[in-house]
Amino acid sequence: MKKLIGKLGVISVLLIAMSMTVFANQRVYKLKMATTWGKTASPLIDTSIKMANLAKVMSNGQLIIRVDSASKHKAPLGILDMVKAGQYDIGHSASYYWKGKDINTLPFTSMPFGMTAAEQYAWFYHGGGLELMQKTYKIHKVLSFPGGNTGVQMGGWFKKEIKSVEDLKGLKIRIPGFAGEIMAKAGALVTNIAPGELYTAFERNTIDALEWVGPSMDINMGFHKVAKYYYTGWHEPASELQFIVNKRSYKKLPKNLQEILVLAFRLAAYDMYIQNYDMNAKAWQKMKKEHPQIKVKSFPEDVKKLLKDSNKKLRESMAAKSPLLKEIFKSQEDYMQSIREWTIISDYQYIKDNL
Amino acid sequence: MKKLIGKLGVISVLLIAMSMTVFANQRVYKLKMATTWGKTASPLIDTSIKMANLAKVMSNGQLIIRVDSASKHKAPLGILDMVKAGQYDIGHSASYYWKGKDINTLPFTSMPFGMTAAEQYAWFYHGGGLELMQKTYKIHKVLSFPGGNTGVQMGGWFKKEIKSVEDLKGLKIRIPGFAGEIMAKAGALVTNIAPGELYTAFERNTIDALEWVGPSMDINMGFHKVAKYYYTGWHEPASELQFIVNKRSYKKLPKNLQEILVLAFRLAAYDMYIQNYDMNAKAWQKMKKEHPQIKVKSFPEDVKKLLKDSNKKLRESMAAKSPLLKEIFKSQEDYMQSIREWTIISDYQYIKDNL
Repeated sequence: MKKLIGKLGVISVLLIAMSMTVFANQRVYKLKMATTWGKTASPLIDTSIKMANLAKVMSNGQLIIRVDSASKHKAPLGILDMVKAGQYDIGHSASYYWKGKDINTLPFTSMPFGMTAAEQYAWFYHGGGLELMQKTYKIHKVLSFPGGNTGVQMGGWFKKEIKSVEDLKGLKIRIPGFAGEIMAKAGALVTNIAPGELYTAFERNTIDALEWVGPSMDINMGFHKVAKYYYTGWHEPASELQFIVNKRSYKKLPKNLQEILVLAFRLAAYDMYIQNYDMNAKAWQKMKKEHPQIKVKSFPEDVKKLLKDSNKKLRESMAAKSPLLKEIFKSQEDYMQSIREWTIISDYQYIKDNL
Repeated sequence: MKKLIGKLGVISVLLIAMSMTVFANQRVYKLKMATTWGKTASPLIDTSIKMANLAKVMSNGQLIIRVDSASKHKAPLGILDMVKAGQYDIGHSASYYWKGKDINTLPFTSMPFGMTAAEQYAWFYHGGGLELMQKTYKIHKVLSFPGGNTGVQMGGWFKKEIKSVEDLKGLKIRIPGFAGEIMAKAGALVTNIAPGELYTAFERNTIDALEWVGPSMDINMGFHKVAKYYYTGWHEPASELQFIVNKRSYKKLPKNLQEILVLAFRLAAYDMYIQNYDMNAKAWQKMKKEHPQIKVKSFPEDVKKLLKDSNKKLRESMAAKSPLLKEIFKSQEDYMQSIREWTIISDYQYIKDNL
């Protein structure tokens, strides 16, 4: 009898130990993610939500990520700060929003006259880009990963045609960031207007032109109803969003969940590029059908030259202030120079042959 | 004492039941995958292996996929048959290899003068393409998913420049499949030569021209050492590989592992597109440097027109024989017509502005 009790006891202890191990492997980890996007900012917020769903599916329910849109945390441009402080574990935003705090974060979103989406993904994953991004984010104690691409953004909506550099002089335009600095150098009066007031300002001629994103996101803003000229893109050829993760939060996860999180980032990012490509195509067809007066234009040669020259000067002055920024610029330039030749031989020539 | 034994018994039974449930959730599923590719056919075989690794990581070791290259199963073009028969659970190949058995499988790889990689992914995931692919593969009792894209394939290596349609007449060229049929209609003498004998045949002028893939895979074949003209692509603008799964094998998996398998397919596919984009760029730089005599050419207008006209006629005659093929062609044409306009406004114009 004692033997039997002994045996049952041993079996029970063994089973308890085994179950504990197994259950530990199935522990649920709850993380919080803050995004820059509003609740209806498709495809940006879709990508945040999709990433959380992918992480849940891949982890068989072990990784549960709560997604807070901008209306919840009220700090759309404060994502890096909140993730750095551990207030959130993960952030979904765009690296160039933090250039005021750390200029080196600028080039990981998109650069004027820079790489296209396919070229840039190749740079991130095969050209040293991801390593440079981690190096840059190290001092912020977060990890950073590609988080979805918009593809080529349009140059913006203009009420009057731009026939030469002269037409830029005194032009009142809303265009933020680096591109705005370049436009200002070209003689434009660059203003900043809150998104909610943009349509009215444009309709009432408070501004003559504005830059937003591309057809997929412009269409809901209604700019095509008040401006006739839609200029092709030059300043954000492939804006890549970023998923950032607090390093302590990341380290608390078991290794396989760390891997899964990074895979969910990568898949959600690619998916957004394709989703937005489709959305742009459909939105453009809709705009064009409802407003056949819209003309797609490219800037004339002298404007393009001026923008390129100003861009070059601005890059040089920035690079002079930061060795790391200089290193990132050089890596992007070298890689682009090599891969662009292939883009021209392949996709560019193919489209040209089929115009 | 009896009470104690009883209690321990109940506890043991409960723990056994719990452990069984938990262990069932952690059961390892071993699957076999046959690929069309040889052991060194990078990036194709890399993508098969990467997919298996992704599935393993995402499933925390529950999905173990053994990858058999062509040298193991000796049936590189018999993947559909083997997966259909259940000899393998999964296959990694290209849909157009089976057009002899089922003509409807043809359009899911790439079509002459068809969509680019980004356009085609958008069609698969947002334009009804994936649904049409499943509909097509239903009679084969397999599921089919995008499995990696080569990007634009080159038009091939030519010893002499093609200045007009006249130069195609009697030209001995190795170019398989649909493109070969079109070339034959244009007056070329289309021959088939085993890959292992291609270089010698080309060097000894048994053939005047040949089509292979693009720089990343052409470079190891050495064709650039014997031919001067490298023609840009028209016949495979975005060859998508396929992962296929036997339906019974798929149904045997728990739902979460089914989902994980499909996510591993999707991620491995996107990754290959980017990997090959990078490989093409690097291989092209290497070729160009070592053989500066190489000239990249596009076919002259009359040749392009002839190829397009022949393609159109061939499509029409094929579509007349199969209502499903007609439906797939129509879906691709309609979607491409819409999205190509966006490609021209965005990526094409952007590259053009920066030439």
